[in-house]
Amino acid sequence: MVVAYRIDQQRLWDSLMKLAEIGSSSPIDQEGITRLSLTKSDLQARGALVDLMEEVGLDVRIDTVGNIIGRWEGTDSTAPAVLTGSHIDTVQQGGIFDGALGVLGAIEAIRTLMEAGVQLKHSIEVVSFLDEEGTRFGTGYIGSKAMAGELKENVFDLIDDDGITYREAFLQANLDPALYKDATRNKGEIKAYIEMHIEQGKVLEEQGLSVGIVTDIQGPLWLDITITGSADHAGATPMNMRKDASLTMAEIILNIETIAKKYDGVGTVGKMTIEPGGVNIIPGKASFSVDLRHVDKVKRAEMVDAVYESVERACQKRNAQYLIDIKKDVDPTSCSEEIIQVLEGACQDLTIPTMKLQCGAGHDSLIMSKMTKMGMIFIRSKDGISHNPKEWSSKEDCATGTQVLLNTLVQLASK
Amino acid sequence: MVVAYRIDQQRLWDSLMKLAEIGSSSPIDQEGITRLSLTKSDLQARGALVDLMEEVGLDVRIDTVGNIIGRWEGTDSTAPAVLTGSHIDTVQQGGIFDGALGVLGAIEAIRTLMEAGVQLKHSIEVVSFLDEEGTRFGTGYIGSKAMAGELKENVFDLIDDDGITYREAFLQANLDPALYKDATRNKGEIKAYIEMHIEQGKVLEEQGLSVGIVTDIQGPLWLDITITGSADHAGATPMNMRKDASLTMAEIILNIETIAKKYDGVGTVGKMTIEPGGVNIIPGKASFSVDLRHVDKVKRAEMVDAVYESVERACQKRNAQYLIDIKKDVDPTSCSEEIIQVLEGACQDLTIPTMKLQCGAGHDSLIMSKMTKMGMIFIRSKDGISHNPKEWSSKEDCATGTQVLLNTLVQLASK
Repeated sequence: MVVAYRIDQQRLWDSLMKLAEIGSSSPIDQEGITRLSLTKSDLQARGALVDLMEEVGLDVRIDTVGNIIGRWEGTDSTAPAVLTGSHIDTVQQGGIFDGALGVLGAIEAIRTLMEAGVQLKHSIEVVSFLDEEGTRFGTGYIGSKAMAGELKENVFDLIDDDGITYREAFLQANLDPALYKDATRNKGEIKAYIEMHIEQGKVLEEQGLSVGIVTDIQGPLWLDITITGSADHAGATPMNMRKDASLTMAEIILNIETIAKKYDGVGTVGKMTIEPGGVNIIPGKASFSVDLRHVDKVKRAEMVDAVYESVERACQKRNAQYLIDIKKDVDPTSCSEEIIQVLEGACQDLTIPTMKLQCGAGHDSLIMSKMTKMGMIFIRSKDGISHNPKEWSSKEDCATGTQVLLNTLVQLASK
Repeated sequence: MVVAYRIDQQRLWDSLMKLAEIGSSSPIDQEGITRLSLTKSDLQARGALVDLMEEVGLDVRIDTVGNIIGRWEGTDSTAPAVLTGSHIDTVQQGGIFDGALGVLGAIEAIRTLMEAGVQLKHSIEVVSFLDEEGTRFGTGYIGSKAMAGELKENVFDLIDDDGITYREAFLQANLDPALYKDATRNKGEIKAYIEMHIEQGKVLEEQGLSVGIVTDIQGPLWLDITITGSADHAGATPMNMRKDASLTMAEIILNIETIAKKYDGVGTVGKMTIEPGGVNIIPGKASFSVDLRHVDKVKRAEMVDAVYESVERACQKRNAQYLIDIKKDVDPTSCSEEIIQVLEGACQDLTIPTMKLQCGAGHDSLIMSKMTKMGMIFIRSKDGISHNPKEWSSKEDCATGTQVLLNTLVQLASK
């Protein structure tokens, strides 16, 4: 089967570049895009997305946690819907494609089908999930968690850097945090979830491929670690009398690298602060985040144990105290074998060379896999760079992935 | 010779506790005192100091860089003056005694002599130097450098964390930066400089001594180092494809510890920031300060070389770039043998047991040694803690040191 419905490469690209203008400062490739969840720029982008969905002719609604859902009704409105999408919030100084491509590509695919007068049995819903990144409040996947019935109420007590609670941010965006459970969907009304996303790694680039098919997703586990030593004078405290919290932290950070390599996972310390922070004062306190990922849940648990041991050992050696707080714990997951086969079929039909690969980043698909069959399409990332102003995927690769998405949606929604 | 002029222990203590109220939040032993140079709290403390000097009967003037000078005229007003003092600015969340004891102790000593109707040949000047700590603008010893003719004009271009230049801070405090050279004194008008200061280390405590006599001062050398790697996604970038700036920094920090131990000096990384600073983003940039000290200038230069080599090596290994900026470079120095002898004589006369020791922290005395004979009295610090809210010296030790200062001043100013 070869589907003749061709997506509009330029229209897709224009919609990506237009959305990129919101939350960016010029030049984008230096300052990037910052649309932290429910901040002014995110709200502006959300408004623009609703406008686009309505322009395309989707039936748009915003659920009780702010997920934006654009539905294209199928011929059998009682049949479960095929969901596709991603998110449009970004990290601090993020890029153009992370999240946005999955949402705008899905809209382009459906728009193409609608314009061709196609009718499919199952409804298709494009979803833009709230706060995938978790940058503002320290925990993400808010929208997908709510939809899958996995959101905990205490998320609303989280506080951003300005002291605003998630509850307050919700209310400011005209969302009622008390109604978050109403966003949870019945499993019966969803047939599948498929997400297109940039790879954010270099595997496809090294293999010279535009698109890839994901087999497994690493689940992220986030820790906050605080080390307490003693803040003494930098000149008058001999080296052997010190309790330097930042040296303890440095040892742990390097150990985390060793642990990640040993277990064939990844481990990252992306945030750190030391106190009191004077040039001539030995740091008495050091706080840092740890992000650990592995496709195998057991292996990841072993990594976490190894990090705990490393903290214990470094603190004992340097006479320091520590506190460890688990901020996020998402299980790794596998994609649906059935959807992987549909994706392979779509690539074959379109004569697009592809490969299967693992996914290192967490995605809304990870959460959605708890309630429905899930699949993911990866698009080649230039130099593997993401969460960075220099994040880039070519116009052609974005279009190729979107075409694969279209064919896959047709297949999934037809019967 | 036994001098019968006894300082007033309680009066000295009261003046210390009164000054401590400015810039502190309650409880002091948790939040400490913050009087960064020319900030509101520093200006308030400076006003209180001028009031105290005037109350005591000193002839007060403020020179063109804001040094507060209280002069007690000698019988021969053409004879060079004996200078004594320290500073009253503090680091972020500093303690009660660092600096303040040297200024208030000097005032107490002179007040005692004035009240006893003593007359000495040489004038004595109590000096409270501007910005010894350097916390606000990243470089210190501003007042003593200006007095010794060592201040460079470009210091006024330095910027604090709020974007205020030192020039602006001067103007806001009614000081004219253009006149800074007028603060430089002729060598001929100063006979000696003597500074009393808390040890900020544990040597006296371990020896069970109230006071010590300093032989040498370690000169601090400050570096600012910036490491540039690549900010990539924490999940999708395999460990062996990363250019993590904070791992490079961690290696260097641990090396600095090794280098300091090897050369028997001290090395401290007290400030660090990483960017972009997201939990799930590999740090692309890491900046940190380095404070290196040694009593031997050649050894310190070898330490600096070793740090440079370590940075070069770590960056090569991890494929990162670096920039190193020298922010401060003060030569180590030795105290005047003549003043050491006078101090020893004073302790002997007062039957106060003492010892000679090195000084690990930089002080205004380090700068003043470039223009005059210099000596230092150290007071025991509880647990060696300083630059910290828990900094503490006992009422008795403060009084003992001040008594040694009084006897030394009498000796130096008599002939």
